[in-house]
Amino acid sequence: MAQKNNDEQFKNVISHAKEYGFVFQSSEIYDGLSAVYDYGQLGAELKNNIKTYWWKAMVQMHENIVGIDSAIFMHPKVWKASGHVDGFNDPMIDNKDSKKRYRADQLLEDKIARYEKDGKTDKAAKLQADMDAALTAENLPQLKVLIEEHEIACPVSGTKNWTEVRQFNLMFSTQFGAMAEGSDEVYLRPETAQGIFVNFLNVQKSGRMKIPFGIAQIGKAFRNEVIARQFIMRMREFEQMEMQFFVRPGEDKKWFEYWKEARLKWHQALGTAPEKYRYHDHVKLAHYANAATDIEFEFPFGFKEVEGIHSRTDFDLTQHQEYSGKKMQYFDNDLNEDGKPFGNYVPYVIETSIGLDRMFLLTMINAFEEQDLSTEDKQDSRTLLRLHPALAPYKVAVFPLTKKDGLPEKAREIMNTLKFDFNCIYEEKDAIGKRYRRQDAIGTPFCITVDHQSLEDHTVTIRHRDSMDQERVAIADLADIVGKAVSWKTLLA
Amino acid sequence: MAQKNNDEQFKNVISHAKEYGFVFQSSEIYDGLSAVYDYGQLGAELKNNIKTYWWKAMVQMHENIVGIDSAIFMHPKVWKASGHVDGFNDPMIDNKDSKKRYRADQLLEDKIARYEKDGKTDKAAKLQADMDAALTAENLPQLKVLIEEHEIACPVSGTKNWTEVRQFNLMFSTQFGAMAEGSDEVYLRPETAQGIFVNFLNVQKSGRMKIPFGIAQIGKAFRNEVIARQFIMRMREFEQMEMQFFVRPGEDKKWFEYWKEARLKWHQALGTAPEKYRYHDHVKLAHYANAATDIEFEFPFGFKEVEGIHSRTDFDLTQHQEYSGKKMQYFDNDLNEDGKPFGNYVPYVIETSIGLDRMFLLTMINAFEEQDLSTEDKQDSRTLLRLHPALAPYKVAVFPLTKKDGLPEKAREIMNTLKFDFNCIYEEKDAIGKRYRRQDAIGTPFCITVDHQSLEDHTVTIRHRDSMDQERVAIADLADIVGKAVSWKTLLA
Repeated sequence: MAQKNNDEQFKNVISHAKEYGFVFQSSEIYDGLSAVYDYGQLGAELKNNIKTYWWKAMVQMHENIVGIDSAIFMHPKVWKASGHVDGFNDPMIDNKDSKKRYRADQLLEDKIARYEKDGKTDKAAKLQADMDAALTAENLPQLKVLIEEHEIACPVSGTKNWTEVRQFNLMFSTQFGAMAEGSDEVYLRPETAQGIFVNFLNVQKSGRMKIPFGIAQIGKAFRNEVIARQFIMRMREFEQMEMQFFVRPGEDKKWFEYWKEARLKWHQALGTAPEKYRYHDHVKLAHYANAATDIEFEFPFGFKEVEGIHSRTDFDLTQHQEYSGKKMQYFDNDLNEDGKPFGNYVPYVIETSIGLDRMFLLTMINAFEEQDLSTEDKQDSRTLLRLHPALAPYKVAVFPLTKKDGLPEKAREIMNTLKFDFNCIYEEKDAIGKRYRRQDAIGTPFCITVDHQSLEDHTVTIRHRDSMDQERVAIADLADIVGKAVSWKTLLA
Repeated sequence: MAQKNNDEQFKNVISHAKEYGFVFQSSEIYDGLSAVYDYGQLGAELKNNIKTYWWKAMVQMHENIVGIDSAIFMHPKVWKASGHVDGFNDPMIDNKDSKKRYRADQLLEDKIARYEKDGKTDKAAKLQADMDAALTAENLPQLKVLIEEHEIACPVSGTKNWTEVRQFNLMFSTQFGAMAEGSDEVYLRPETAQGIFVNFLNVQKSGRMKIPFGIAQIGKAFRNEVIARQFIMRMREFEQMEMQFFVRPGEDKKWFEYWKEARLKWHQALGTAPEKYRYHDHVKLAHYANAATDIEFEFPFGFKEVEGIHSRTDFDLTQHQEYSGKKMQYFDNDLNEDGKPFGNYVPYVIETSIGLDRMFLLTMINAFEEQDLSTEDKQDSRTLLRLHPALAPYKVAVFPLTKKDGLPEKAREIMNTLKFDFNCIYEEKDAIGKRYRRQDAIGTPFCITVDHQSLEDHTVTIRHRDSMDQERVAIADLADIVGKAVSWKTLLA
């Protein structure tokens, strides 16, 4: 029952996102492009505000963190050095009859779920263990053996006529330049982090950065996901907000703990219920990490990763040093315990990496509320987007009570004083109640109504989104009231 | 002589951009990637500020303009409809000995330039006319004839052993999905505009937009330029800021004039000398346009396009209507001269399209100044980045006069009150004069120095970048002084 409600809530958020111009299917008039979405007129504003919150919290508030904006195209050797050319694969299998391709591990996981549903928990556990062992050993033939043993059929053709399991690289590639003889293959970056690593020396030197220091970046990344699902949770084109924090070797654990805590605080400052978040510490670590944790949020479909904090050691810089032949070192002239400078070393790195689109989805889900406002006398309800005011697409809606008597002119006059500092929307159509509801649905924290009294005493009604309280205030005080509520300081202080 | 100075000034700007962390060559440690650049720690801030200025001017200041953020990946049919699959080509020719590929028209233009340099103006004019005729007629064999007639040799092999001239599409493509039998070919968008056109119905309906209205977007676009040059002027990966303004047929010329004027004002508000800008009206129009102009800026290498304003008629929406089978219409219930509603029509479109990277380069060039400050007694100079304060990466630098006596603590205390509203930088190393120079070079409009007197009377010295004037002000007044100078209102009002 709870599951059903969750599914329904998720569906409602998705249709709300489309109806009000937050998220559209990409190229929808051409029946869409799988696993790609566009942000509409309100989505673009909300997404920009989330970016600004992150950038301000990471870059503006930290003396020792700077932000860069590196290109999506990078030299192909970057992905050799990072391990993505050789290791960024999914095990794929084709059905010879339907010609459809599947992720081998996904077919097995679907089978495990079916065993569990049928109460065959022993079988499920056994298959899970076998699959994990095969994946860990990168034993592709064994994955095929399991698919055959468990008689998994293609959902399209219904046959068990499978090819071998092969590795399929998740990076998109394209041809660069126009050389007559063979162009260069260039990848679309699958993560923004490498743009930071290859610029480590440039930024450190030109910015005279002293360790510990961080480099932050927001940007697009691309992965040729075979199975894309859950709306904007897993897309082929997505956006990341990543920060690499360069530290002295031996101080990595300390900074890992610092960032683990700092990043959770960033999330919690938005006012989300604390129980919606949890850490998921990695037990099995990637080859480059000596500690890793995910910050998970409880989506309607369960707890899922929103952000990762990884202690990546000196792996990336060392790899780039090897592949580029350039020394990726830092000279540390602080003194150690023996009173001597620490000298040259390859810094260790703590990475914080958050999926912007997931953060957007989290924000929408968390803010979405269908409120029953019924009284004994009449049925009533409203849909509310309880966004933090600093994140709301519009800060203020300005309404003239009626379309005549100079009220629209007065309303626009007020809007013209506010619009430099706040994104405002003007609405004169429909009854005031209906206009309030529309602003509730898009998360506008303040509605200002201009009536006949406004012309006389220079006051207006200001209505608060969450409480629906209305109060009469001087026009001269509006900028201050709104300014305080939507200030970034409310989130950053 | 003037040319030489211009070349030198351009070189100085490029090396300044690298030295201070504005722009780095992409993947520099791997010897770079041709025609791709990364924005460093100050470049990212400046670029963000230019984006913000555009977004605020277009979206926040116009009630009837909204902004979206559509994906780089779009359905392949979009580029069929837009004409890019068939028409977005350059004529290319290969030298059989060097295996190098060239743009045929570029080879001819280089020859024309050589004729002119050698005083053979008749020959130059004749070749120019012949080339223009061949290009207009899309007569590729004739381009080869001209190359042979004028005995153009490959700069690498020195031979005249050429292949036929062929069309080469400028779009990057990649393989999408993981179907066993042939994946789908998807393009990286060569312009952001189509993301607006395909979302026209979604935005108009969900945002209840009434004509005339606009949709704006900032985003990456990609073109496989064969010859990339002039630093960030022409890159393979670049960023556009585009706005499509949808109007009633017949009102297109009026709005074209409006946007032509409005966009030039946007540029001029930054304080650039008016003679640096000019309009270049297109005489020969693209097939989709009924009027077009470029806003050109005088770069060190001549007047070049920074922004285009195009009256695109109903071409794009009509094409998408045809290819998608969806009605791309608007119902206009305003009344015409006969007192009847205008009814259904495909809107006409005025486009404003600005290259963000070119705007960035323009801003750097325009701000860069090497000032001779020598007096009779001593030689002195400074490098100054005279950026508009609203665009400057850092708004305030905070310096303790010395590293002791509690001055660093007091300086940080001040910084902590300012940093929520302004991007600040703290510097305690080197003499104050040297610190001033460094901030001049990165365009910081205000330097605040905390000295012993500050501890007593809560005042500091504030130093103005352009005039180098210093004044003693109360710490309590700092936020107001800085706030007024860097406010977006100075640009938008």
